[in-house]
Amino acid sequence: MSTLDAVLNRIDRDIDQSVARLFALLRIASVSTDPAFKQQCRDAAEHVATDLRSIGFETSVRPTEGHPVVVGKSDGGAGPRVLFYGHYDVQPVDPLNLWKTPPFEPRIEALPDGRKIIVARGACDDKGQAMTFIEACRAFKAINGKLPLPITMMIEGEEECGSQHLFKFVRDNAAELKLDLALVCDTAMWDQKTPAVTTSLRGLVYEDVKITCADRDLHSGVFGGAAQNPIRLLAKILGALWDDNGRVTIPGFYDDVKELPADIKADLKSLDLTPEKFLGPIGLKVPAGEKDRMLIELVTTRPTAEINGIVGGYTGEGAKTVIPGQASAKVSFRLVGDQDPGKIRDAFRAFVKARLPADCSVEFGNFGLAAALQLSFDNPALNKAREVLGEEWGKKAVAVGAGGSIPIVADFKSVLGMDSLLVGFALDDDRVHSPNEKFDLTCYHKGIRSWARILAALSDAK
Amino acid sequence: MSTLDAVLNRIDRDIDQSVARLFALLRIASVSTDPAFKQQCRDAAEHVATDLRSIGFETSVRPTEGHPVVVGKSDGGAGPRVLFYGHYDVQPVDPLNLWKTPPFEPRIEALPDGRKIIVARGACDDKGQAMTFIEACRAFKAINGKLPLPITMMIEGEEECGSQHLFKFVRDNAAELKLDLALVCDTAMWDQKTPAVTTSLRGLVYEDVKITCADRDLHSGVFGGAAQNPIRLLAKILGALWDDNGRVTIPGFYDDVKELPADIKADLKSLDLTPEKFLGPIGLKVPAGEKDRMLIELVTTRPTAEINGIVGGYTGEGAKTVIPGQASAKVSFRLVGDQDPGKIRDAFRAFVKARLPADCSVEFGNFGLAAALQLSFDNPALNKAREVLGEEWGKKAVAVGAGGSIPIVADFKSVLGMDSLLVGFALDDDRVHSPNEKFDLTCYHKGIRSWARILAALSDAK
Repeated sequence: MSTLDAVLNRIDRDIDQSVARLFALLRIASVSTDPAFKQQCRDAAEHVATDLRSIGFETSVRPTEGHPVVVGKSDGGAGPRVLFYGHYDVQPVDPLNLWKTPPFEPRIEALPDGRKIIVARGACDDKGQAMTFIEACRAFKAINGKLPLPITMMIEGEEECGSQHLFKFVRDNAAELKLDLALVCDTAMWDQKTPAVTTSLRGLVYEDVKITCADRDLHSGVFGGAAQNPIRLLAKILGALWDDNGRVTIPGFYDDVKELPADIKADLKSLDLTPEKFLGPIGLKVPAGEKDRMLIELVTTRPTAEINGIVGGYTGEGAKTVIPGQASAKVSFRLVGDQDPGKIRDAFRAFVKARLPADCSVEFGNFGLAAALQLSFDNPALNKAREVLGEEWGKKAVAVGAGGSIPIVADFKSVLGMDSLLVGFALDDDRVHSPNEKFDLTCYHKGIRSWARILAALSDAK
Repeated sequence: MSTLDAVLNRIDRDIDQSVARLFALLRIASVSTDPAFKQQCRDAAEHVATDLRSIGFETSVRPTEGHPVVVGKSDGGAGPRVLFYGHYDVQPVDPLNLWKTPPFEPRIEALPDGRKIIVARGACDDKGQAMTFIEACRAFKAINGKLPLPITMMIEGEEECGSQHLFKFVRDNAAELKLDLALVCDTAMWDQKTPAVTTSLRGLVYEDVKITCADRDLHSGVFGGAAQNPIRLLAKILGALWDDNGRVTIPGFYDDVKELPADIKADLKSLDLTPEKFLGPIGLKVPAGEKDRMLIELVTTRPTAEINGIVGGYTGEGAKTVIPGQASAKVSFRLVGDQDPGKIRDAFRAFVKARLPADCSVEFGNFGLAAALQLSFDNPALNKAREVLGEEWGKKAVAVGAGGSIPIVADFKSVLGMDSLLVGFALDDDRVHSPNEKFDLTCYHKGIRSWARILAALSDAK
């Protein structure tokens, strides 16, 4: 029997204890955003540290100006040095009356379709997910006495309130944390049967645009037809941001956007994300983006432009015949691939200025400038992970993009120069951040097995 | 000496008494919008009635639910029966501290350029203007014993607060008030040397447009690129309301807009209203309307489209990555000529609907639907008035359009079926509605003479 098979057997045999260990962590009400739970956050950190020490990690609970960060280190076999990131803090539980049982009293429930689920605040996000990795490490230590590769754990306590002190922590401890690859367990599967690796997070440029025409508000009876109207200019200029095929018209916008590799695109296509499935629940039918793209591309791997807000003139009840002096809008761009946030911001500003009459003026404000994160599709770790996730789940893992972001992951790249492999086992129905949060027992069990396979694959020791 | 010459001589000889009579009316603080001045409004009505009776008008002070309406009637020579409209009420005087002398203590002041001015609230709007007409009638009665044509006076007391009870009054007394022509003295000269007849008032269609896409607000990271954005739709649709030459693109919009007669257009051209003169004071330079039109056409005789207000999404400080479910705008159209308000509203709504994706919806609300008023350029009264105004001022009167409106004038046409000839002697620097309102003594004096000439011309008794 190979080491990996022995480790997987051990995981199966030990699953009840794995669940018990997760329950112990779930019982600690580590709500990070509420100062009333400061001690519970500290308790959770100590609990994780004690657990890591029990499996041979050299562990410390490091203070920050907020909740502490748990850092644990262990040597291992030949292979890339990895930094594992997870978080021990959880979302608040309100409205408490919507919970069927108390949020910090974890329990197993059987669903009508036979699925068994772990119900508690943090069952999935992120205590359950983080524990899949820790349990995989535990099994290696039990079977082999050591890990397949050197691992540093960084389990923080402020993810649910913006990771505000972690950015400085990572900068201050860069020499220690800069390893070969980051592993993150805080994302989702494609569906119950299809594992996924999140290979991209879209970037963001967020601009505020204020156009000024006349130096005061005007009466449309007197000036209508002669005076330029800043709402009309905004409508004309922002309305021209897209062509009839839904493509953004800013010159050079798509220059640094690469086509997906054919195999990745084929994988995405096979997922068959239809407008009915994705847009139906919010009352829509027709995708608004580029017409020649699959919906899954539109929301994950293609850049977008959006008007997030607009205001000008009279907006109360009834009528007022005003031509306002000013009007403003908030416009944002989701970036992908190698799109440069500064270049996109400048191109947008030039686009607006080029369409502005000489006697009108524009002021811009910036509220966001972040590059996209893209794991190279030929990254060996990615391909190994997709492969072995396929062995575990019976279906090769899809490489998907996420529209949102995990703030610290951008810093892993920009500050530590390290790629991140995001593998997670959440499902769409996990009610993360909502009452009755759950984690499928199967996701927990096979999640542990999945990490064992990934660690083995990365170490080449399989 | 002709009757008219005798009347004009009498006006010149009597000018000091004419000023004294105006001062007596100006001393009554008939602020219509403030209930504290109810008795003063009644006093002003009685004062006007007494004055009209003194020159042989059969006069009554008619009650309304608001301030009373003064109606006076007098027979006269052969000629069209005219209804003269003016108002005895005035605007509030605040801020009082900006008045150099008390607003209801009229006085004559000499300006550095030699002009003499009457200073008081109402000196121009509309007590001074209305009195030019009454004084012209007085002179005819004094010289000839009778008026050159039958005249009914209707002097109201609520013009400065929207004429709200006059509309019903006109409807209720239509049989009595429906005559051959209305004369109105509440408008302006072109400049100090150029008299003007206001021949058109633009109409209005005012619409509220609300677009709904998703049934809730969405996160742009998750749905950006797939979900339709109602602000984007509004921008795209409303931005398409004008072509690159500033023309409104709604099909059929200009169908019922006639070209001005060549002589009227030549007159307007000779006025030389430049962008510097008109737009300079508000900080603009380039007219925003149809490129092939004179500025004076744009603001008076051409129809317009304006976005008067727009709102949607996040409009606070900073950034929020939302795609709103709804966004709305207020859009208005100034109409001219025979443009039908209902037809324009319907064409606008069709324009919006035609550009709306099938899964989005729009709701419209209407806050205004008024046809333009246009005095036919071959109306004989108009041409006689322009001619004799030229004799008085040494420069033929220009026929101009007004962007705004005098609410009751529309009802003269729609309810009474009567055209209105709008002649007035206000100047741009009269500070109407502001502290230190004034009326040039020359405008008052020559205004009286102007009405004498017009009445004579209309009667064909010259």
